[in-house]
Amino acid sequence: MAQAIDMLETHPRSLNTDAGLLASAIDALAECASTCTQCADACLAENDVAPLVECIRLNLDCADICEATSRVVARQAGSNPDVVRAQLQACIEACRACGDECERHGMHMEHCRICAESCRRCEEACRQLLVAMA
Amino acid sequence: MAQAIDMLETHPRSLNTDAGLLASAIDALAECASTCTQCADACLAENDVAPLVECIRLNLDCADICEATSRVVARQAGSNPDVVRAQLQACIEACRACGDECERHGMHMEHCRICAESCRRCEEACRQLLVAMA
Amino acid sequence: MAQAIDMLETHPRSLNTDAGLLASAIDALAECASTCTQCADACLAENDVAPLVECIRLNLDCADICEATSRVVARQAGSNPDVVRAQLQACIEACRACGDECERHGMHMEHCRICAESCRRCEEACRQLLVAMA
Amino acid sequence: MAQAIDMLETHPRSLNTDAGLLASAIDALAECASTCTQCADACLAENDVAPLVECIRLNLDCADICEATSRVVARQAGSNPDVVRAQLQACIEACRACGDECERHGMHMEHCRICAESCRRCEEACRQLLVAMA
Repeated sequence: MAQAIDMLETHPRSLNTDAGLLASAIDALAECASTCTQCADACLAENDVAPLVECIRLNLDCADICEATSRVVARQAGSNPDVVRAQLQACIEACRACGDECERHGMHMEHCRICAESCRRCEEACRQLLVAMA
Repeated sequence: MAQAIDMLETHPRSLNTDAGLLASAIDALAECASTCTQCADACLAENDVAPLVECIRLNLDCADICEATSRVVARQAGSNPDVVRAQLQACIEACRACGDECERHGMHMEHCRICAESCRRCEEACRQLLVAMA
Repeated sequence: MAQAIDMLETHPRSLNTDAGLLASAIDALAECASTCTQCADACLAENDVAPLVECIRLNLDCADICEATSRVVARQAGSNPDVVRAQLQACIEACRACGDECERHGMHMEHCRICAESCRRCEEACRQLLVAMA
Repeated sequence: MAQAIDMLETHPRSLNTDAGLLASAIDALAECASTCTQCADACLAENDVAPLVECIRLNLDCADICEATSRVVARQAGSNPDVVRAQLQACIEACRACGDECERHGMHMEHCRICAESCRRCEEACRQLLVAMA
Protein backbone atom coordinates (compact mmCIF):
# COMPACT_ATOMS: atom_id res chain seq x y z
CA MET A 1 0.00 0.00 0.00
CA ALA A 2 2.32 2.73 -1.28
CA GLN A 3 -1.06 4.23 -2.27
CA ALA A 4 -1.70 6.01 1.00
CA ILE A 5 1.44 8.14 0.84
CA ASP A 6 0.99 8.87 -2.90
CA MET A 7 -2.55 10.04 -2.24
CA LEU A 8 -1.40 12.28 0.60
CA GLU A 9 1.28 13.85 -1.58
CA THR A 10 -1.20 14.72 -4.33
CA HIS A 11 -3.78 16.17 -1.93
CA PRO A 12 -4.49 19.82 -2.83
CA ARG A 13 -4.23 21.01 0.77
CA SER A 14 -1.13 20.95 2.88
CA LEU A 15 -1.13 18.39 5.65
CA ASN A 16 -1.61 19.20 9.31
CA THR A 17 0.64 16.32 10.30
CA ASP A 18 3.64 14.40 9.06
CA ALA A 19 2.71 12.54 5.84
CA GLY A 20 4.76 9.48 6.77
CA LEU A 21 3.06 9.04 10.15
CA LEU A 22 -0.34 9.59 8.58
CA ALA A 23 0.25 7.08 5.78
CA SER A 24 1.62 4.52 8.26
CA ALA A 25 -1.51 4.91 10.37
CA ILE A 26 -3.84 4.56 7.36
CA ASP A 27 -2.01 1.38 6.30
CA ALA A 28 -1.86 -0.09 9.81
CA LEU A 29 -5.57 0.62 10.36
CA ALA A 30 -6.60 -1.05 7.09
CA GLU A 31 -4.42 -4.07 7.82
CA CYS A 32 -5.66 -4.41 11.40
CA ALA A 33 -9.31 -4.17 10.29
CA SER A 34 -8.83 -6.97 7.74
CA THR A 35 -6.81 -9.14 10.11
CA CYS A 36 -9.41 -8.81 12.90
CA THR A 37 -12.24 -9.71 10.49
CA GLN A 38 -10.27 -12.77 9.39
CA CYS A 39 -9.39 -13.70 12.98
CA ALA A 40 -13.06 -13.57 14.04
CA ASP A 41 -13.90 -15.91 11.17
CA ALA A 42 -11.04 -18.28 12.00
CA CYS A 43 -12.10 -18.34 15.69
CA LEU A 44 -15.67 -19.18 14.59
CA ALA A 45 -14.28 -22.10 12.59
CA GLU A 46 -12.39 -23.65 15.54
CA ASN A 47 -13.74 -26.90 17.01
CA ASP A 48 -14.27 -25.36 20.42
CA VAL A 49 -15.74 -21.87 19.98
CA ALA A 50 -16.79 -21.31 23.61
CA PRO A 51 -13.39 -20.10 24.95
CA LEU A 52 -13.07 -17.76 21.94
CA VAL A 53 -16.38 -15.89 22.26
CA GLU A 54 -14.76 -12.90 23.96
CA CYS A 55 -11.98 -12.89 21.38
CA ILE A 56 -14.54 -12.84 18.54
CA ARG A 57 -16.39 -9.90 20.11
CA LEU A 58 -13.20 -7.90 20.53
CA ASN A 59 -12.11 -8.79 16.97
CA LEU A 60 -15.43 -7.42 15.67
CA ASP A 61 -15.18 -4.27 17.82
CA CYS A 62 -11.60 -3.69 16.75
CA ALA A 63 -12.39 -4.17 13.03
CA ASP A 64 -15.32 -1.71 13.21
CA ILE A 65 -13.34 0.88 15.16
CA CYS A 66 -10.23 0.58 12.95
CA GLU A 67 -12.31 1.10 9.80
CA ALA A 68 -14.04 4.20 11.17
CA THR A 69 -10.71 5.56 12.44
CA SER A 70 -9.04 4.91 9.11
CA ARG A 71 -11.71 6.96 7.32
CA VAL A 72 -11.60 9.82 9.83
CA VAL A 73 -7.80 9.96 9.64
CA ALA A 74 -7.85 9.82 5.83
CA ARG A 75 -10.02 12.99 5.79
CA GLN A 76 -7.06 14.81 7.26
CA ALA A 77 -7.42 18.04 5.37
CA GLY A 78 -9.97 19.68 7.55
CA SER A 79 -11.66 17.47 10.06
CA ASN A 80 -12.13 18.68 13.58
CA PRO A 81 -8.92 17.81 15.51
CA ASP A 82 -10.88 17.00 18.70
CA VAL A 83 -12.86 14.37 16.79
CA VAL A 84 -9.73 12.86 15.25
CA ARG A 85 -7.98 12.72 18.63
CA ALA A 86 -10.96 11.15 20.44
CA GLN A 87 -11.34 8.56 17.68
CA LEU A 88 -7.63 7.74 17.79
CA GLN A 89 -7.90 7.26 21.55
CA ALA A 90 -10.85 4.88 21.13
CA CYS A 91 -8.86 2.98 18.52
CA ILE A 92 -5.81 2.66 20.78
CA GLU A 93 -8.12 1.24 23.46
CA ALA A 94 -9.70 -1.24 21.01
CA CYS A 95 -6.34 -2.40 19.62
CA ARG A 96 -4.96 -2.85 23.13
CA ALA A 97 -7.95 -4.88 24.35
CA CYS A 98 -8.06 -7.04 21.21
CA GLY A 99 -4.28 -7.48 21.16
CA ASP A 100 -4.28 -8.60 24.82
CA GLU A 101 -7.08 -11.11 24.23
CA CYS A 102 -5.53 -12.50 21.02
CA GLU A 103 -2.17 -12.83 22.74
CA ARG A 104 -3.71 -15.15 25.36
CA HIS A 105 -4.73 -17.58 22.59
CA GLY A 106 -1.65 -16.98 20.45
CA MET A 107 0.28 -19.96 21.75
CA HIS A 108 -2.39 -22.38 20.57
CA MET A 109 -3.78 -20.51 17.61
CA GLU A 110 -1.56 -19.06 14.94
CA HIS A 111 -4.30 -16.72 13.60
CA CYS A 112 -4.58 -15.12 17.04
CA ARG A 113 -0.81 -14.70 17.26
CA ILE A 114 -0.68 -12.90 13.89
CA CYS A 115 -3.72 -10.81 14.79
CA ALA A 116 -2.17 -9.74 18.11
CA GLU A 117 0.86 -8.45 16.19
CA SER A 118 -1.39 -6.49 13.82
CA CYS A 119 -3.17 -4.94 16.79
CA ARG A 120 0.12 -3.94 18.43
CA ARG A 121 1.41 -2.31 15.23
CA CYS A 122 -1.87 -0.45 14.77
CA GLU A 123 -1.97 0.69 18.40
CA GLU A 124 1.57 2.02 18.03
CA ALA A 125 0.82 3.81 14.71
CA CYS A 126 -2.26 5.49 16.24
CA ARG A 127 -0.27 6.50 19.31
CA GLN A 128 2.47 8.10 17.22
CA LEU A 129 -0.08 9.99 15.15
CA LEU A 130 -1.86 11.17 18.29
CA VAL A 131 1.42 12.46 19.76
CA ALA A 132 2.28 14.23 16.48
CA MET A 133 -1.12 15.93 16.48
CA ALA A 134 -0.85 17.22 20.02
CA MET B 1 -37.35 0.63 15.50
CA ALA B 2 -38.99 -1.22 18.37
CA GLN B 3 -36.54 -3.89 17.18
CA ALA B 4 -33.60 -2.79 19.30
CA ILE B 5 -35.40 -3.22 22.61
CA ASP B 6 -37.00 -6.54 21.56
CA MET B 7 -33.59 -7.86 20.61
CA LEU B 8 -32.10 -6.78 23.94
CA GLU B 9 -34.90 -8.49 25.85
CA THR B 10 -34.35 -11.81 24.06
CA HIS B 11 -30.57 -11.72 24.49
CA PRO B 12 -29.42 -14.82 26.42
CA ARG B 13 -27.17 -12.83 28.73
CA SER B 14 -28.32 -10.28 31.25
CA LEU B 15 -27.48 -6.68 30.37
CA ASN B 16 -24.77 -4.65 32.03
CA THR B 17 -26.78 -1.48 31.55
CA ASP B 18 -30.36 -0.30 31.43
CA ALA B 19 -32.10 -1.81 28.37
CA GLY B 20 -34.06 1.36 27.65
CA LEU B 21 -30.95 3.57 27.55
CA LEU B 22 -29.13 1.02 25.41
CA ALA B 23 -31.98 0.67 22.92
CA SER B 24 -32.36 4.47 22.73
CA ALA B 25 -28.67 4.81 21.97
CA ILE B 26 -28.76 2.09 19.28
CA ASP B 27 -31.74 3.82 17.62
CA ALA B 28 -30.28 7.32 17.89
CA LEU B 29 -26.94 6.13 16.47
CA ALA B 30 -28.58 4.44 13.48
CA GLU B 31 -30.74 7.48 12.78
CA CYS B 32 -27.84 9.91 13.10
CA ALA B 33 -25.65 7.82 10.78
CA SER B 34 -28.37 7.79 8.10
CA THR B 35 -29.18 11.47 8.50
CA CYS B 36 -25.51 12.50 8.25
CA THR B 37 -25.06 10.41 5.09
CA GLN B 38 -28.13 12.06 3.59
CA CYS B 39 -27.00 15.54 4.71
CA ALA B 40 -23.59 15.08 3.07
CA ASP B 41 -25.33 14.13 -0.17
CA ALA B 42 -27.75 17.07 0.05
CA CYS B 43 -24.85 19.47 0.72
CA LEU B 44 -23.04 18.07 -2.36
CA ALA B 45 -26.17 18.81 -4.41
CA GLU B 46 -26.38 22.49 -3.40
CA ASN B 47 -25.53 25.12 -6.03
CA ASP B 48 -22.67 26.52 -3.98
CA VAL B 49 -20.71 23.63 -2.43
CA ALA B 50 -17.66 25.63 -1.32
CA PRO B 51 -19.06 26.93 2.02
CA LEU B 52 -20.31 23.41 2.82
CA VAL B 53 -17.06 21.48 2.41
CA GLU B 54 -16.35 21.42 6.15
CA CYS B 55 -19.95 20.37 6.83
CA ILE B 56 -19.64 17.47 4.36
CA ARG B 57 -16.42 16.26 6.01
CA LEU B 58 -17.97 16.37 9.47
CA ASN B 59 -21.10 14.62 8.17
CA LEU B 60 -18.94 11.82 6.80
CA ASP B 61 -16.90 11.57 10.02
CA CYS B 62 -20.04 11.54 12.12
CA ALA B 63 -21.75 8.86 9.98
CA ASP B 64 -18.68 6.59 10.17
CA ILE B 65 -18.22 7.06 13.90
CA CYS B 66 -21.94 6.60 14.68
CA GLU B 67 -22.03 3.33 12.74
CA ALA B 68 -18.98 1.92 14.50
CA THR B 69 -20.32 3.06 17.87
CA SER B 70 -23.71 1.53 17.16
CA ARG B 71 -22.08 -1.85 16.49
CA VAL B 72 -19.83 -1.71 19.54
CA VAL B 73 -22.77 -0.74 21.77
CA ALA B 74 -24.97 -3.47 20.27
CA ARG B 75 -22.38 -6.08 21.34
CA GLN B 76 -23.17 -5.17 24.91
CA ALA B 77 -23.00 -8.62 26.39
CA GLY B 78 -19.32 -8.84 26.87
CA SER B 79 -17.27 -6.18 25.21
CA ASN B 80 -14.52 -4.48 27.09
CA PRO B 81 -16.09 -1.53 29.01
CA ASP B 82 -13.02 0.69 28.41
CA VAL B 83 -13.44 0.26 24.67
CA VAL B 84 -17.18 1.02 24.80
CA ARG B 85 -16.57 4.11 26.93
CA ALA B 86 -13.78 5.47 24.72
CA GLN B 87 -15.87 4.89 21.60
CA LEU B 88 -18.89 6.63 23.17
CA GLN B 89 -16.65 9.60 24.02
CA ALA B 90 -15.41 9.81 20.42
CA CYS B 91 -19.02 9.66 19.24
CA ILE B 92 -20.11 12.45 21.57
CA GLU B 93 -17.26 14.56 20.16
CA ALA B 94 -18.26 13.78 16.56
CA CYS B 95 -21.96 14.51 17.14
CA ARG B 96 -21.11 17.77 18.88
CA ALA B 97 -18.79 18.97 16.09
CA CYS B 98 -21.19 17.94 13.33
CA GLY B 99 -24.23 19.35 15.18
CA ASP B 100 -22.45 22.69 15.65
CA GLU B 101 -21.46 22.92 11.99
CA CYS B 102 -24.92 21.90 10.71
CA GLU B 103 -26.55 24.39 13.03
CA ARG B 104 -24.61 27.25 11.39
CA HIS B 105 -26.20 26.38 8.03
CA GLY B 106 -29.57 25.40 9.47
CA MET B 107 -31.21 28.76 8.88
CA HIS B 108 -30.63 28.54 5.13
CA MET B 109 -30.71 24.80 4.62
CA GLU B 110 -33.44 22.65 6.02
CA HIS B 111 -31.43 19.41 5.67
CA CYS B 112 -28.73 20.87 7.91
CA ARG B 113 -31.31 21.94 10.47
CA ILE B 114 -32.82 18.42 10.65
CA CYS B 115 -29.33 16.87 10.77
CA ALA B 116 -28.26 19.16 13.62
CA GLU B 117 -31.25 17.89 15.64
CA SER B 118 -30.33 14.26 14.93
CA CYS B 119 -26.76 14.94 16.09
CA ARG B 120 -28.02 16.58 19.33
CA ARG B 121 -30.30 13.65 20.12
CA CYS B 122 -27.52 11.16 19.40
CA GLU B 123 -24.99 13.09 21.49
CA GLU B 124 -27.46 13.12 24.38
CA ALA B 125 -28.27 9.39 24.07
CA CYS B 126 -24.55 8.53 24.07
CA ARG B 127 -23.94 10.78 27.06
CA GLN B 128 -26.73 9.13 29.06
CA LEU B 129 -25.41 5.68 28.24
CA LEU B 130 -21.88 6.71 29.21
CA VAL B 131 -23.11 8.03 32.59
CA ALA B 132 -25.09 4.82 33.19
CA MET B 133 -21.99 2.73 32.46
CA ALA B 134 -19.74 4.64 34.85
CA MET C 1 -37.16 7.42 11.89
CA ALA C 2 -39.39 10.01 10.21
CA GLN C 3 -35.94 11.51 9.54
CA ALA C 4 -35.30 9.67 6.28
CA ILE C 5 -38.36 11.06 4.51
CA ASP C 6 -37.82 14.59 5.91
CA MET C 7 -34.26 14.53 4.64
CA LEU C 8 -35.39 13.38 1.19
CA GLU C 9 -37.97 16.16 0.99
CA THR C 10 -35.40 18.85 1.79
CA HIS C 11 -32.82 17.52 -0.68
CA PRO C 12 -31.97 20.24 -3.24
CA ARG C 13 -32.24 17.85 -6.18
CA SER C 14 -35.42 16.16 -7.31
CA LEU C 15 -35.54 12.42 -6.66
CA ASN C 16 -35.10 9.77 -9.31
CA THR C 17 -37.46 7.45 -7.45
CA ASP C 18 -40.51 7.56 -5.22
CA ALA C 19 -39.58 9.24 -1.91
CA GLY C 20 -41.74 6.86 0.13
CA LEU C 21 -40.12 3.73 -1.27
CA LEU C 22 -36.67 5.24 -0.84
CA ALA C 23 -37.29 6.28 2.78
CA SER C 24 -38.79 2.85 3.56
CA ALA C 25 -35.69 1.18 2.15
CA ILE C 26 -33.33 3.44 4.12
CA ASP C 27 -35.24 2.69 7.33
CA ALA C 28 -35.50 -1.06 6.68
CA LEU C 29 -31.78 -1.26 5.86
CA ALA C 30 -30.76 0.56 9.04
CA GLU C 31 -33.05 -1.60 11.16
CA CYS C 32 -31.88 -4.85 9.54
CA ALA C 33 -28.21 -3.90 10.00
CA SER C 34 -28.75 -3.23 13.72
CA THR C 35 -30.86 -6.34 14.24
CA CYS C 36 -28.31 -8.60 12.51
CA THR C 37 -25.48 -7.15 14.63
CA GLN C 38 -27.52 -7.79 17.76
CA CYS C 39 -28.50 -11.29 16.59
CA ALA C 40 -24.85 -12.24 15.99
CA ASP C 41 -24.03 -11.11 19.52
CA ALA C 42 -27.00 -12.99 21.01
CA CYS C 43 -26.00 -16.15 19.10
CA LEU C 44 -22.44 -15.80 20.46
CA ALA C 45 -23.91 -15.64 23.99
CA GLU C 46 -25.90 -18.89 23.68
CA ASN C 47 -24.70 -21.92 25.64
CA ASP C 48 -24.17 -24.00 22.53
CA VAL C 49 -22.57 -21.80 19.84
CA ALA C 50 -21.57 -24.59 17.44
CA PRO C 51 -24.96 -24.96 15.63
CA LEU C 52 -25.13 -21.16 15.27
CA VAL C 53 -21.78 -20.53 13.58
CA GLU C 54 -23.31 -20.30 10.12
CA CYS C 55 -26.04 -18.02 11.44
CA ILE C 56 -23.43 -15.69 12.98
CA ARG C 57 -21.51 -15.50 9.69
CA LEU C 58 -24.65 -14.67 7.72
CA ASN C 59 -25.68 -12.11 10.35
CA LEU C 60 -22.30 -10.40 9.96
CA ASP C 61 -22.48 -10.51 6.15
CA CYS C 62 -26.02 -9.17 6.17
CA ALA C 63 -25.18 -6.32 8.59
CA ASP C 64 -22.18 -5.25 6.47
CA ILE C 65 -24.10 -5.44 3.20
CA CYS C 66 -27.17 -3.63 4.58
CA GLU C 67 -25.01 -0.77 5.87
CA ALA C 68 -23.22 -0.32 2.56
CA THR C 69 -26.52 -0.53 0.67
CA SER C 70 -28.14 1.98 2.97
CA ARG C 71 -25.37 4.49 2.26
CA VAL C 72 -25.43 3.92 -1.50
CA VAL C 73 -29.23 4.28 -1.60
CA ALA C 74 -29.11 7.42 0.58
CA ARG C 75 -26.85 9.09 -2.03
CA GLN C 76 -29.76 8.92 -4.42
CA ALA C 77 -29.25 12.25 -6.11
CA GLY C 78 -26.68 11.22 -8.59
CA SER C 79 -25.12 7.84 -8.07
CA ASN C 80 -24.69 5.50 -10.98
CA PRO C 81 -27.96 3.51 -11.34
CA ASP C 82 -26.08 0.32 -12.34
CA VAL C 83 -24.15 0.44 -9.07
CA VAL C 84 -27.32 1.04 -7.02
CA ARG C 85 -29.12 -1.82 -8.75
CA ALA C 86 -26.24 -4.29 -8.35
CA GLN C 87 -25.88 -3.38 -4.68
CA LEU C 88 -29.63 -3.78 -4.09
CA GLN C 89 -29.44 -7.22 -5.71
CA ALA C 90 -26.57 -8.25 -3.43
CA CYS C 91 -28.57 -6.99 -0.45
CA ILE C 92 -31.67 -8.95 -1.47
CA GLU C 93 -29.47 -12.07 -1.66
CA ALA C 94 -27.92 -11.39 1.77
CA CYS C 95 -31.30 -10.72 3.44
CA ARG C 96 -32.75 -13.87 1.91
CA ALA C 97 -29.86 -16.08 3.03
CA CYS C 98 -29.76 -14.61 6.53
CA GLY C 99 -33.57 -14.67 6.85
CA ASP C 100 -33.66 -18.35 5.85
CA GLU C 101 -30.95 -19.30 8.33
CA CYS C 102 -32.47 -17.29 11.20
CA GLU C 103 -35.88 -18.80 10.48
CA ARG C 104 -34.47 -22.29 11.07
CA HIS C 105 -33.50 -21.30 14.61
CA GLY C 106 -36.52 -19.06 15.20
CA MET C 107 -38.58 -21.69 16.98
CA HIS C 108 -35.96 -22.10 19.70
CA MET C 109 -34.46 -18.66 19.74
CA GLU C 110 -36.55 -15.53 19.90
CA HIS C 111 -33.71 -13.25 18.72
CA CYS C 112 -33.42 -15.31 15.51
CA ARG C 113 -37.18 -15.12 14.96
CA ILE C 114 -37.20 -11.32 15.26
CA CYS C 115 -34.10 -11.07 13.07
CA ALA C 116 -35.69 -13.24 10.36
CA GLU C 117 -38.62 -10.82 10.24
CA SER C 118 -36.26 -7.84 9.91
CA CYS C 119 -34.47 -9.58 7.04
CA ARG C 120 -37.79 -10.30 5.25
CA ARG C 121 -38.94 -6.71 5.58
CA CYS C 122 -35.59 -5.42 4.33
CA GLU C 123 -35.51 -7.87 1.41
CA GLU C 124 -39.01 -6.72 0.42
CA ALA C 125 -38.15 -3.00 0.72
CA CYS C 126 -35.05 -3.49 -1.46
CA ARG C 127 -37.04 -5.46 -4.00
CA GLN C 128 -39.68 -2.74 -4.27
CA LEU C 129 -37.04 -0.07 -4.72
CA LEU C 130 -35.28 -2.14 -7.37
CA VAL C 131 -38.56 -2.57 -9.30
CA ALA C 132 -39.29 1.17 -9.04
CA MET C 133 -35.82 1.96 -10.41
CA ALA C 134 -36.13 -0.34 -13.43
CA MET D 1 -0.13 -6.70 3.69
CA ALA D 2 1.37 -10.18 3.73
CA GLN D 3 -1.12 -10.50 6.59
CA ALA D 4 -4.06 -11.59 4.46
CA ILE D 5 -2.33 -14.68 3.08
CA ASP D 6 -0.84 -15.61 6.49
CA MET D 7 -4.29 -15.41 8.04
CA LEU D 8 -5.79 -17.59 5.31
CA GLU D 9 -3.08 -20.21 5.78
CA THR D 10 -3.72 -20.47 9.52
CA HIS D 11 -7.51 -20.66 9.15
CA PRO D 12 -8.80 -23.92 10.70
CA ARG D 13 -11.03 -24.72 7.74
CA SER D 14 -9.83 -25.51 4.25
CA LEU D 15 -10.51 -22.80 1.68
CA ASN D 16 -13.19 -23.00 -0.97
CA THR D 17 -11.05 -20.96 -3.34
CA ASP D 18 -7.44 -20.35 -4.22
CA ALA D 19 -5.70 -18.66 -1.25
CA GLY D 20 -3.61 -16.42 -3.52
CA LEU D 21 -6.64 -15.03 -5.38
CA LEU D 22 -8.51 -14.55 -2.13
CA ALA D 23 -5.63 -12.72 -0.43
CA SER D 24 -5.11 -10.54 -3.52
CA ALA D 25 -8.79 -9.59 -3.47
CA ILE D 26 -8.73 -8.79 0.27
CA ASP D 27 -5.65 -6.58 -0.24
CA ALA D 28 -7.01 -4.86 -3.36
CA LEU D 29 -10.36 -4.19 -1.67
CA ALA D 30 -8.73 -2.64 1.41
CA GLU D 31 -6.45 -0.51 -0.74
CA CYS D 32 -9.27 0.65 -3.02
CA ALA D 33 -11.48 1.55 -0.06
CA SER D 34 -8.72 3.71 1.48
CA THR D 35 -7.79 5.31 -1.83
CA CYS D 36 -11.41 6.20 -2.64
CA THR D 37 -11.88 7.75 0.82
CA GLN D 38 -8.71 9.80 0.29
CA CYS D 39 -9.75 10.76 -3.27
CA ALA D 40 -13.15 12.02 -2.07
CA ASP D 41 -11.38 14.18 0.50
CA ALA D 42 -8.87 15.48 -2.04
CA CYS D 43 -11.71 16.32 -4.48
CA LEU D 44 -13.49 18.21 -1.69
CA ALA D 45 -10.30 20.22 -1.13
CA GLU D 46 -9.99 21.36 -4.78
CA ASN D 47 -10.70 25.02 -5.60
CA ASP D 48 -13.54 24.15 -7.93
CA VAL D 49 -15.61 21.36 -6.38
CA ALA D 50 -18.65 21.59 -8.71
CA PRO D 51 -17.24 19.44 -11.57
CA LEU D 52 -16.12 16.82 -9.03
CA VAL D 53 -19.43 16.24 -7.24
CA GLU D 54 -20.22 13.09 -9.20
CA CYS D 55 -16.68 11.83 -8.62
CA ILE D 56 -17.04 12.36 -4.87
CA ARG D 57 -20.32 10.42 -4.80
CA LEU D 58 -18.84 7.51 -6.71
CA ASN D 59 -15.74 7.56 -4.48
CA LEU D 60 -17.97 7.29 -1.41
CA ASP D 61 -20.09 4.51 -2.96
CA CYS D 62 -16.98 2.62 -4.02
CA ALA D 63 -15.34 2.93 -0.59
CA ASP D 64 -18.48 1.66 1.18
CA ILE D 65 -18.99 -1.22 -1.25
CA CYS D 66 -15.30 -2.25 -1.20
CA GLU D 67 -15.30 -2.38 2.60
CA ALA D 68 -18.43 -4.51 2.78
CA THR D 69 -17.09 -6.79 0.04
CA SER D 70 -13.74 -7.13 1.78
CA ARG D 71 -15.48 -8.32 4.96
CA VAL D 72 -17.78 -10.74 3.15
CA VAL D 73 -14.84 -12.21 1.20
CA ALA D 74 -12.71 -12.48 4.35
CA ARG D 75 -15.41 -14.69 5.94
CA GLN D 76 -14.61 -17.23 3.31
CA ALA D 77 -14.97 -20.35 5.39
CA GLY D 78 -18.68 -20.74 5.22
CA SER D 79 -20.61 -17.83 3.85
CA ASN D 80 -23.32 -18.39 1.35
CA PRO D 81 -21.68 -18.49 -2.14
CA ASP D 82 -24.67 -16.70 -3.75
CA VAL D 83 -24.20 -13.78 -1.37
CA VAL D 84 -20.44 -13.63 -2.02
CA ARG D 85 -20.97 -13.72 -5.78
CA ALA D 86 -23.69 -11.03 -5.78
CA GLN D 87 -21.54 -8.79 -3.60
CA LEU D 88 -18.50 -9.30 -5.84
CA GLN D 89 -20.65 -8.34 -8.84
CA ALA D 90 -21.82 -5.15 -7.11
CA CYS D 91 -18.20 -4.35 -6.28
CA ILE D 92 -17.06 -4.86 -9.86
CA GLU D 93 -19.81 -2.44 -10.95
CA ALA D 94 -18.77 0.14 -8.32
CA CYS D 95 -15.06 -0.09 -9.18
CA ARG D 96 -15.83 0.24 -12.89
CA ALA D 97 -18.06 3.31 -12.44
CA CYS D 98 -15.64 5.00 -10.04
CA GLY D 99 -12.61 4.08 -12.16
CA ASP D 100 -14.26 5.56 -15.28
CA GLU D 101 -15.17 8.80 -13.53
CA CYS D 102 -11.74 9.19 -11.89
CA GLU D 103 -10.06 8.53 -15.23
CA ARG D 104 -11.87 11.51 -16.77
CA HIS D 105 -10.26 13.82 -14.20
CA GLY D 106 -6.95 11.95 -14.09
CA MET D 107 -5.20 14.21 -16.55
CA HIS D 108 -5.70 17.26 -14.37
CA MET D 109 -5.75 15.68 -10.95
CA GLU D 110 -3.10 13.25 -9.83
CA HIS D 111 -5.21 11.88 -6.95
CA CYS D 112 -7.91 10.87 -9.44
CA ARG D 113 -5.33 9.19 -11.68
CA ILE D 114 -3.96 7.10 -8.79
CA CYS D 115 -7.49 6.30 -7.61
CA ALA D 116 -8.54 5.15 -11.09
CA GLU D 117 -5.64 2.68 -11.05
CA SER D 118 -6.67 1.37 -7.62
CA CYS D 119 -10.23 0.87 -8.90
CA ARG D 120 -9.00 -1.02 -11.98
CA ARG D 121 -6.80 -3.34 -9.90
CA CYS D 122 -9.66 -3.98 -7.47
CA GLU D 123 -12.17 -4.61 -10.26
CA GLU D 124 -9.75 -7.12 -11.79
CA ALA D 125 -9.06 -8.88 -8.46
CA CYS D 126 -12.81 -9.23 -7.81
CA ARG D 127 -13.39 -10.51 -11.33
CA GLN D 128 -10.70 -13.17 -10.96
CA LEU D 129 -12.12 -14.29 -7.63
CA LEU D 130 -15.63 -14.43 -9.09
CA VAL D 131 -14.42 -16.61 -11.98
CA ALA D 132 -12.55 -18.91 -9.58
CA MET D 133 -15.70 -19.33 -7.47
CA ALA D 134 -17.94 -20.21 -10.41
